[in-house]
Amino acid sequence: GFAGVQILEEVIAAVPDGIPVILDAKRGDIASTAQAYAQAAFEAMGAHAVTVNPYLGYDALEPFLADPQRGVFLLCKTSNPGAADLQDLQISPAGSSRWHGQRTLYEQVALLAQNWNQNDNLGLVVGATYPQDLGRVRNLAPDLWILVPGVGVQGGDLESALQAGLRRDGLGILLPVSRGLSQAADPRKAALDLR
Amino acid sequence: GFAGVQILEEVIAAVPDGIPVILDAKRGDIASTAQAYAQAAFEAMGAHAVTVNPYLGYDALEPFLADPQRGVFLLCKTSNPGAADLQDLQISPAGSSRWHGQRTLYEQVALLAQNWNQNDNLGLVVGATYPQDLGRVRNLAPDLWILVPGVGVQGGDLESALQAGLRRDGLGILLPVSRGLSQAADPRKAALDLR
Repeated sequence: GFAGVQILEEVIAAVPDGIPVILDAKRGDIASTAQAYAQAAFEAMGAHAVTVNPYLGYDALEPFLADPQRGVFLLCKTSNPGAADLQDLQISPAGSSRWHGQRTLYEQVALLAQNWNQNDNLGLVVGATYPQDLGRVRNLAPDLWILVPGVGVQGGDLESALQAGLRRDGLGILLPVSRGLSQAADPRKAALDLR
Repeated sequence: GFAGVQILEEVIAAVPDGIPVILDAKRGDIASTAQAYAQAAFEAMGAHAVTVNPYLGYDALEPFLADPQRGVFLLCKTSNPGAADLQDLQISPAGSSRWHGQRTLYEQVALLAQNWNQNDNLGLVVGATYPQDLGRVRNLAPDLWILVPGVGVQGGDLESALQAGLRRDGLGILLPVSRGLSQAADPRKAALDLR
């Protein structure tokens, strides 16, 4: 059980200064617990950013956003096959005067993130396995940083992700390749092969 | 960091045999990680059930459901104030022939849980702070067990929760009171006062 957490702390401690650490913990709990999770991630573990699940709404997110020096990536359209079950559902206005027409749940999350980004430290997670949806999110959130997992083992294409996700300034996405490198026979060669 | 996990393992180990342990970990990750989380919760930690977040869809849930002897409570309408941000959004049919009219996201999760409950080991989480919504979920999922947090510190009312959430057989809900007892000056008295 707890050996895993200990190993994670050792790995984070071994990362050289100046390299940001994003803890892909997908947290999502009520405010009192979120406060403790934020403290664990940022203070005890020393992470610089953490991924958070949007299902519980803003108060589950707020404790992670309080320090402008620490970042949050909010799950928007995840890289897995089941992502469609909830995230692709069509949301309807229901009397809201703020927008017309329909959008999907993940698009709504992208718009909420724009509103919630008061400290300029909130980004989104969109899987490279859904490049079209990544393009839609980029249109709805033109300035936010997007964490784009799914290149490698999960089958996402690097070129399509770059084309759909980059901002006009040529920045704005982070492309983690985890299992594709960590489980490769020759990680250096696997990394060079991605280019 | 990891001391907390160690303490949790010790607490679980101290629970007498025959008393079920529900790990309110609100997990939600892609299948390969969900598999590891399920193993950690059920095998390493010895929990009998775990709470899971529905945002990632079925494949994030499946590894937790594989063993009919272990249970899952799927977050449906959470007890916190921010629950409304996503969970109360109106979902529209979008060409689906399976239902007409509108429903909220949390109602859709209740219906998905009915479909996903192939091993008779899937329940829902609905906060006692939203008794009306608890009644709606009970109508949509007449047989599922519902975990109903929020009585006590969070302000949920015990009577309303029982009235809205119980099945026709007088069973079907679990009512954890956590901080209300663990942080009470006299936990025994606080428990008796709930009646």
